[in-house]
Amino acid sequence: MRPADVVIMPAIDPNATQPVVPPTLSWSGETDGCLKLIDQTQLPADCPIIECRQVEQVWDAIRRLRVRGAPAIGVAAAYGVVLGLQAVVAANGDNTAFDRRLDEVRAYLASSRPTAVNLFAALNRMRTAADASRDQTPHARLERLLDEAQQIELEDQRMCAAIGNNGAPLLVDHQGVLTHCNTGALATAGMGTALAVIFAAAASGKRLHVYADETRPLLQGARLTTWELMQRGIPVTLICDSAAAWVMKEKRVNAVITGADRIAANGDAANKIGTYALAILAARHEIPFYVAAPSTTFDLSLADGNSIPIEERDPGEITAGFGRKIAPANVAAYNPAFDVTPAEYITAIITERGVIEHPTRERIRTLLH
Amino acid sequence: MRPADVVIMPAIDPNATQPVVPPTLSWSGETDGCLKLIDQTQLPADCPIIECRQVEQVWDAIRRLRVRGAPAIGVAAAYGVVLGLQAVVAANGDNTAFDRRLDEVRAYLASSRPTAVNLFAALNRMRTAADASRDQTPHARLERLLDEAQQIELEDQRMCAAIGNNGAPLLVDHQGVLTHCNTGALATAGMGTALAVIFAAAASGKRLHVYADETRPLLQGARLTTWELMQRGIPVTLICDSAAAWVMKEKRVNAVITGADRIAANGDAANKIGTYALAILAARHEIPFYVAAPSTTFDLSLADGNSIPIEERDPGEITAGFGRKIAPANVAAYNPAFDVTPAEYITAIITERGVIEHPTRERIRTLLH
Repeated sequence: MRPADVVIMPAIDPNATQPVVPPTLSWSGETDGCLKLIDQTQLPADCPIIECRQVEQVWDAIRRLRVRGAPAIGVAAAYGVVLGLQAVVAANGDNTAFDRRLDEVRAYLASSRPTAVNLFAALNRMRTAADASRDQTPHARLERLLDEAQQIELEDQRMCAAIGNNGAPLLVDHQGVLTHCNTGALATAGMGTALAVIFAAAASGKRLHVYADETRPLLQGARLTTWELMQRGIPVTLICDSAAAWVMKEKRVNAVITGADRIAANGDAANKIGTYALAILAARHEIPFYVAAPSTTFDLSLADGNSIPIEERDPGEITAGFGRKIAPANVAAYNPAFDVTPAEYITAIITERGVIEHPTRERIRTLLH
Repeated sequence: MRPADVVIMPAIDPNATQPVVPPTLSWSGETDGCLKLIDQTQLPADCPIIECRQVEQVWDAIRRLRVRGAPAIGVAAAYGVVLGLQAVVAANGDNTAFDRRLDEVRAYLASSRPTAVNLFAALNRMRTAADASRDQTPHARLERLLDEAQQIELEDQRMCAAIGNNGAPLLVDHQGVLTHCNTGALATAGMGTALAVIFAAAASGKRLHVYADETRPLLQGARLTTWELMQRGIPVTLICDSAAAWVMKEKRVNAVITGADRIAANGDAANKIGTYALAILAARHEIPFYVAAPSTTFDLSLADGNSIPIEERDPGEITAGFGRKIAPANVAAYNPAFDVTPAEYITAIITERGVIEHPTRERIRTLLH
């Protein structure tokens, strides 16, 4: 694999009054173009933009969390399919070669990360679009696939805005809000999911104070969420994940809101490791626990959360994550990237189609159909 | 303040079959001697021994967590009193000067860290010992104080052994045990508190698998607890603090055991930030939650945990720990070092005098008197 081209952007001033974040990801050019991504592993110290010209670079970017967040992964994978088909079209391959390569590319991208369902949903949409254009030339079909990827991106932007608008009324003026991981513009093609709710509530004049879990091991809360909130002028205080219960006990927060990577038919929701604990702790402190996610996050093929595959990542993320080794050599470490919050702990799921209070199988089915 | 002398020890082989840890702290010499400490902030990469010859160096070592763990802080402070009185004795000061300096030194050491009561208990014992020797020369009184500090150290060693023996029967063969922070030899003058229970259970033939919370922000679990367990050949798996609930859900652990820094008269227990969450999560998963601490950890002057002072530490421990900055410049962070677990969540408190099941004011009073 050729390393992705990197354009180093200057570090962004967190005191800027206007958001100056470059797009999380964007397609550049026509069907022979490339996908540009912020390499989020370098934030907030640097904000490099990488240019992916090969599908392998997209796979690698997803795998290494250069691009992360369930919706953003889905959009990136859709563009990855386009990149993966460029060579067969450039070589004047026929539709048989096109379809064979499409299957390869889809299977390959599907192997990047297992938990977020948006990845698989996006790959399925690309397959459906390709199937619907079987009577066209490979070049025309690639144009159709680029259109589809751009459509997925556009829908994601609209979904984010609608999630924000639907969720904003749930947050109360002068409220403290706890969030986990990063669910903002950096996690989506739009304004975010859980953070979009906070952005929309703040835009409507509500004065919120956000407590951001740092979110070990990869510190998306410390590195990304605080950065997005500071850029938008929303007060934010960073805490260790282990301090969340105490912050609830001290009544500093009145609501918890997180995203989700996959939601089963009964409402059980997989999200970043630590979310399950927050949900239990919120219930104990009688604080509402909200999940904000686009409807594409539901996987109705799974009866409940027990069937959601949980990615286990490299122990080195825990033992050597801060620039130096922080544990003895050869120590064993267990690093599940996600956990599953049972629906019973979820006060409401906020989607672009509406809010599902106290989610049940029936309420979810009603909203989605 | 003169910087403490440092003797760099070679890094210790975590695969060694026999414990080869130098003493956490030890007095060297007579009344004009010095206090040697492992600088625990450098573990496990290095194991430097610092020689404290001035009380300011002890204050600094406690403040910066070069020596930490409630019992070890108490022992260090007792020796710190001896160091603080050396000059007045060397200068042939009289008993008035001796007592004035003693008050200064005690107040000074008491200002190092606010939460662990062992610090104040040790300083009070030193005062009582000094008062009881008012008819002797300052030099004889200093000898008496060195004896008292050595007595505190010896008692701590015995308490650790008794805590281990009293708690070991509570752990079950083939059990997974979750622990938080470091409560081993590095936290005491002896074998530890919560880890002493694990060591004693393992020594009695029980096969335990320990899950160690990394314990943000200062990573005592990742750096110290795994190190101690590996040196003693006890299987240990490091996890992020936020994964504890999921590890319980997956039934990897059947018991939680932690230490305590101060326990109120009703059994509410202050301990490292994150302990309160673990107690709630253990209750939710019907897993026993044990606190292991010497009887000196009880502060019967406090009716309940609401009166325990909670130390708030530098936000830089969260934002810039371990080698590089991991959050935007100027981000606000909230860094309470401790939280308080209500007695209702504590299955039992394990002390050197016995085990208090489902602690209440009456049961605590009965055991302590």
